[in-house]
Amino acid sequence: MANGKELNKIVIKILKKNGLSAKHALICSKALINAELVGAHSHGLSRLKMYCDRIKKKVINPKPKIKIKKISPSISHIDADNSIGFVAADIAIKQAIKNAKKTGIGLVAVKNSGHYGLSGYYIEQAVKKKLVAMCFTNAPPAIAPHGAIKKLFGTNPICFGSPTNSSVPFILDTSVSMINRGKIRVAAKNKKKIPEGVALDKYGKPTTDAEKALKGVQLPMGGFRGSGLAWMVDILSGVFTGGNHGGRVKDPFDDFSGPQNIGHLFLAIKSNLFVKNYNKRIKENIRLIQRLPKIKGVKEIVYPGQNKYKRYRSNLKKGIVIPKNILKELIKLNVVR
Amino acid sequence: MANGKELNKIVIKILKKNGLSAKHALICSKALINAELVGAHSHGLSRLKMYCDRIKKKVINPKPKIKIKKISPSISHIDADNSIGFVAADIAIKQAIKNAKKTGIGLVAVKNSGHYGLSGYYIEQAVKKKLVAMCFTNAPPAIAPHGAIKKLFGTNPICFGSPTNSSVPFILDTSVSMINRGKIRVAAKNKKKIPEGVALDKYGKPTTDAEKALKGVQLPMGGFRGSGLAWMVDILSGVFTGGNHGGRVKDPFDDFSGPQNIGHLFLAIKSNLFVKNYNKRIKENIRLIQRLPKIKGVKEIVYPGQNKYKRYRSNLKKGIVIPKNILKELIKLNVVR
Repeated sequence: MANGKELNKIVIKILKKNGLSAKHALICSKALINAELVGAHSHGLSRLKMYCDRIKKKVINPKPKIKIKKISPSISHIDADNSIGFVAADIAIKQAIKNAKKTGIGLVAVKNSGHYGLSGYYIEQAVKKKLVAMCFTNAPPAIAPHGAIKKLFGTNPICFGSPTNSSVPFILDTSVSMINRGKIRVAAKNKKKIPEGVALDKYGKPTTDAEKALKGVQLPMGGFRGSGLAWMVDILSGVFTGGNHGGRVKDPFDDFSGPQNIGHLFLAIKSNLFVKNYNKRIKENIRLIQRLPKIKGVKEIVYPGQNKYKRYRSNLKKGIVIPKNILKELIKLNVVR
Repeated sequence: MANGKELNKIVIKILKKNGLSAKHALICSKALINAELVGAHSHGLSRLKMYCDRIKKKVINPKPKIKIKKISPSISHIDADNSIGFVAADIAIKQAIKNAKKTGIGLVAVKNSGHYGLSGYYIEQAVKKKLVAMCFTNAPPAIAPHGAIKKLFGTNPICFGSPTNSSVPFILDTSVSMINRGKIRVAAKNKKKIPEGVALDKYGKPTTDAEKALKGVQLPMGGFRGSGLAWMVDILSGVFTGGNHGGRVKDPFDDFSGPQNIGHLFLAIKSNLFVKNYNKRIKENIRLIQRLPKIKGVKEIVYPGQNKYKRYRSNLKKGIVIPKNILKELIKLNVVR
């Protein structure tokens, strides 16, 4: 059991040791610890060693010269100079918020970035500023396009957020695969099985073996529909932004032959652009849906982000549980230069 | 077998008889015949009688005073005055294109509209102007939110389009249900079965009976993921625009107690905002994906919109097949005042 503040100090120390500025180390640490607090362990401390390895192998730039190009008062383009993804994404969402506050709508594209963790972490920042927001990012090959037997699309999340007139924001952060790749990775690390129907092995056969699934292909939800959504995300975050696309984003764990050059796209819009009473309307929307008759055994209809928020509050109190193998990695990273 | 031009004359005549201006009748006719040409019969002539019925019952306004409010050079808000959806959507996408051409990005929200047919029809207009575009619309209750046993969300399509550097645009137009409601409606009309796993009857039991499915609940793709996407679309097109939301959009076939007040949201962005060579990049993207090894029996990996385009070309040559029952409706609508 670890305390968030202590962990924060350790993670910052490790990242600074690896060449990041104090400012950038803090941005990364906050994002990583947030992932642990919301229960997305696959996007948290289990990735810290990978980030450090990539810095050592010079495929993440610890001292990036990030350029923000203003295209219009609403639109900005960021060249992240192969920074760690957290830093690029944090700068990008803050720019999108700024643009949206000024003009009603903010669109920010990022190129030459890397894996940025949870999309919801950035969208939440915009939602807290009373904006409705979306973001897209691509990722290393995991899903086979509909009709193909080879993986090419990443799990390519679609993320959307809205204020709710309460302290619990509406944050939909869903990959277009049947389950998140990170969950398969954690299952593999902990020698656990994955559900049926979510992946094929490298020979194209259904599998519940997490290791085999990682070497094979993940299945998109809804067949050609999920495949089409993954393709859309690849176009919006890769083709459109200047980032890698078409299966060229490198796997951060396995491929150190060069930077990832992931692309991200952030869109933020004032929630009260078209209606004066947005807060009242969204509250009513949620009320209408939550009062529906429920399936037997379901206590409450929750909106996206509600469960995550509950885990966050609970973990903030209880502290963060760190598995032994991750703890060992942390100690090693903290001691070894 | 009918010829598009002849059909166009008949449909325009019918709509003008029902009080639409020549201009508005032409907009509707083009959209309806396009639906037939791309093979989306559930969104074509099979709906014409319903639109006329709604005009007669005064829940569609045939002579709307559509107001376009300029919020910024990029952003417009349209009050469609309960016009037929086609007209509102056509004006909206043209405004979004105009705004995007001027400022790089165009966002147009519509309220007090109705069912507008195929989202892809509008997005294609933007794509032809070298824009990347998205749109969202809500629809009458069809899908149960995750955890509920009563339908509330519409099939709420997500539509995205991109130029492809060829005459065949990339148009993803996917509902978040397992299959389109229109397809179930057509199956019911033709007394055909629907696939397993796409719907429940009104008692919450799985069914392949189209009639029972229409009275029951459609299932979202990917469980809570599809449910979350449907919720997102309801927020973006309903809560955000000033349209109905939270299950309050009336079924156009069954509920004549008032106008639908559907909301739509259109976003259009210059494809070369962030990269100079967008056309080259998208061509490369499609090439990389289409050359992947294929599943046995699959000849070609197609991108969203490709099959639709093939059907369009073929039907344009062959003519449109009209089922007897629809033909009867057309004749009656054309003769009776």
